[in-house]
Amino acid sequence: MNKVLNHKSLKQTDQVVFNNFISKYSNKEIVVVQGLGFVGSVMSLVCANAINGSYAVIGVEVSTNRGEKITKDLNNGIFPLVAEDPKIDQLFEKSIEQGNFFATTETDAYKVADIIIIDINLDVEKENLTSGALIDYNVDLSSFKKAIVSIGENCKEDALILVETTVPPGSCMKVVKPIIHDCLRKRNLPLDKIRIGHSYERVMPGPNYIDSIQNFYRVYSGIDEKSADALESFLHTIIRTDEYPLTRLGNTNATEMAKVLENSYRAMNIAFMVEWSRFAEEADVDLYEVVNAIRFRSTHANLMYPGIGVGGYCLTKDALLASWSRQNLIGQNESLSQSEKAIDINDQMPRFAFEFLQKHYQNLSGAKVLLLGISYRGDVGDTRYSPVEKLYDYLSEIGAIITCHDPYIKFWEEESLEIDQDLNTHVSSSPDIIIISTGHTIYKNQNTIDALFNLGSSFIYDTIGLLSAEQIAHLKEKHTIKVLGRGDL
Amino acid sequence: MNKVLNHKSLKQTDQVVFNNFISKYSNKEIVVVQGLGFVGSVMSLVCANAINGSYAVIGVEVSTNRGEKITKDLNNGIFPLVAEDPKIDQLFEKSIEQGNFFATTETDAYKVADIIIIDINLDVEKENLTSGALIDYNVDLSSFKKAIVSIGENCKEDALILVETTVPPGSCMKVVKPIIHDCLRKRNLPLDKIRIGHSYERVMPGPNYIDSIQNFYRVYSGIDEKSADALESFLHTIIRTDEYPLTRLGNTNATEMAKVLENSYRAMNIAFMVEWSRFAEEADVDLYEVVNAIRFRSTHANLMYPGIGVGGYCLTKDALLASWSRQNLIGQNESLSQSEKAIDINDQMPRFAFEFLQKHYQNLSGAKVLLLGISYRGDVGDTRYSPVEKLYDYLSEIGAIITCHDPYIKFWEEESLEIDQDLNTHVSSSPDIIIISTGHTIYKNQNTIDALFNLGSSFIYDTIGLLSAEQIAHLKEKHTIKVLGRGDL
Repeated sequence: MNKVLNHKSLKQTDQVVFNNFISKYSNKEIVVVQGLGFVGSVMSLVCANAINGSYAVIGVEVSTNRGEKITKDLNNGIFPLVAEDPKIDQLFEKSIEQGNFFATTETDAYKVADIIIIDINLDVEKENLTSGALIDYNVDLSSFKKAIVSIGENCKEDALILVETTVPPGSCMKVVKPIIHDCLRKRNLPLDKIRIGHSYERVMPGPNYIDSIQNFYRVYSGIDEKSADALESFLHTIIRTDEYPLTRLGNTNATEMAKVLENSYRAMNIAFMVEWSRFAEEADVDLYEVVNAIRFRSTHANLMYPGIGVGGYCLTKDALLASWSRQNLIGQNESLSQSEKAIDINDQMPRFAFEFLQKHYQNLSGAKVLLLGISYRGDVGDTRYSPVEKLYDYLSEIGAIITCHDPYIKFWEEESLEIDQDLNTHVSSSPDIIIISTGHTIYKNQNTIDALFNLGSSFIYDTIGLLSAEQIAHLKEKHTIKVLGRGDL
Repeated sequence: MNKVLNHKSLKQTDQVVFNNFISKYSNKEIVVVQGLGFVGSVMSLVCANAINGSYAVIGVEVSTNRGEKITKDLNNGIFPLVAEDPKIDQLFEKSIEQGNFFATTETDAYKVADIIIIDINLDVEKENLTSGALIDYNVDLSSFKKAIVSIGENCKEDALILVETTVPPGSCMKVVKPIIHDCLRKRNLPLDKIRIGHSYERVMPGPNYIDSIQNFYRVYSGIDEKSADALESFLHTIIRTDEYPLTRLGNTNATEMAKVLENSYRAMNIAFMVEWSRFAEEADVDLYEVVNAIRFRSTHANLMYPGIGVGGYCLTKDALLASWSRQNLIGQNESLSQSEKAIDINDQMPRFAFEFLQKHYQNLSGAKVLLLGISYRGDVGDTRYSPVEKLYDYLSEIGAIITCHDPYIKFWEEESLEIDQDLNTHVSSSPDIIIISTGHTIYKNQNTIDALFNLGSSFIYDTIGLLSAEQIAHLKEKHTIKVLGRGDL
């Protein structure tokens, strides 16, 4: 789906393009987006196609091989990620037509920026046992700080700096502001004109990617009143705030905390079900049935269903950012123990999923296993921290012969695997075990169910409750079916 | 509010009343409710005033002093609990008029019962440190088993036994059924006519007490198909199932699990906020503001606000019943660690609330402290496991001079304290510190706020976020205000 679009600046060198771009847009406000990953690349499109503004947008990546490739691809009309949302291609094409979006690895970009949006990663290094149990973790702010320095050394004295990166609470006041002020001081520039604010994205990769930025509620704050005001004005230009009003919080600690609290809460709700689904299996209880019986209570409407575990960039780490902050940045030396525990439990889920299979299928060594889906989430081409990766490793270690399908992934980076996207090829190879591991819509289709039904007798293992009761009844005629979080069917 | 109603059977002895009652209702189905506490007493009223049935109801208590008092009171027109729900008095008066409700400590009652509802307590013995931290706990089934034996030794061979007590999952199949069958065998009675089912109440003491039984969804199951059918028929007669349809689950393990899962989930959500509210205080964040900014997301709509902690009979223990079952009844020797942790964290909350006060008010020894509210929940007269009790103990230990107010409590059993229900007396005694500890509506009234305002300068400590921003602004003119879970105001 990575279409190559006809980009105007295809043949020119970076510096020339950059200079041309700047002079062309001397009369426009310039937005620079730092970091062109899952958030920054799409945020760039949103800014280049602002609702109420007219921005020239420069995306900046670090000058690594990966960074050079991303910027070159972007300038050549290749968007760095595949998503179900057709609006991404539309906005990308529009920005190419308009010519108001350009990607570079040059930090010179910050010199011309009126608004700088920070969308770089801030990772947590986790140390897990083979079982998945979390034994330690560390937050290293050094590359985040470096990125802030590169802004501080170059930015205009009156730039608006918007931190969108998910950071440990306290970062804007204790890291970003001191670094920027320090740089400005060294450059003999005043400190009273710079604006620094925080507003977290709630980007949801998938079919509503763009809408999760443009058409969704935003929470924001500033390091001071003027910063908050400046940020508010900017957000009005890119978000449909008439329908999705903004919420200003009292300080940047509050918005930073809100983001990691949201995700910690979600991670905890998932972890809750991890433990109970194992209890349900032991007690021969269908936990899906139980959850359905409880869910209509408004206080319990967000109970999760059982599943193979949590993946993606945010839910697997944000609680740790928070707990780290409480111990190291806000400085009370106490952890958020329950939120940390959620991460620990979730990290073990793929092993539980594996053990469930082991219990019900005796000889996994040499068994032909087909994994349906490797993304961490349905209808998304995103394998970052996918729980399927761990399951793959356990299966591989025990000697299973594994093939993988995913309609959104051509190459599985974490496992260095080419993925054949033709489902028929996989199914017709007569696997012994079929594991439904990601909730892609395609797997719910009657065609897929029919193809599975027409196989020789197999063991079908639904780790995410994708199959309906009717589909299970149908498939059971020929196959053995097991569902994670369910007693015997 | 404990009205003495004119009961017809006032002067007769128990045995005579019992015999008269039985012969009078020989043509009616007889419901016996075992246990007349917060659930059983109200359940008796609901059955005596069934929507679609016509039952004679006998409430049975154990023959302890307490049991004798409750049954005597009931037969003398005194209902054993005070609640805001006017329907309780109405239904009680109606049952007295009808003469179809009678209380006794005689186990003979089980002999005539067509339906037996088990509403006795099943407690968890917890061992906590002074800090509140949970170090151990135990579930003792012996008195529960004894109660089941007393039924098994007396019940009709075709009685319907409904377990409403919150039990460790597995109890109906592994405890109730074997005991009842054993008793029937010893009595040379057949085993195929008895019906045993489980359906948990979602009783909510307070203004909607009766509705929380009659007008609310029910989940039920049976130890076999016929038991489930019989239970279903009965539930249709006491619950408005046209509006609140019943949900049948696959086995009794499932409904037993559903109940403790519901309450474990709620306890966990509260515990989550306990840790984050301390983090918020440290980071000078107003957590109320943060929760409001997040709550409109449907996946996060049930985020709790900060507070003094959890109380009441269910949320303080149900997760432990579940975890105990997993280790001892279902038998996998693994705990539900996250759910246990929730209880541990919640049990520590009163200490955190105390420490917050200590931090902001230097000399608590000798300080005159007024506690507004001792119930664990607003508009309820229920002090069971109230977190205010622990706070009271910490304050008392440090030498504070404490007075307590609660509009629903005349005598605080746990602390052996008479409670003066006149708020004016308390306020006019010029306390140094006023702690808002329960969310009774009366404390939100303008009259109360005015009375507080008119005091000499005091320290007002809102532990539950009862005061609105406007009220705080108003009170701040004369007083120092601190709110748990909020940075400096």
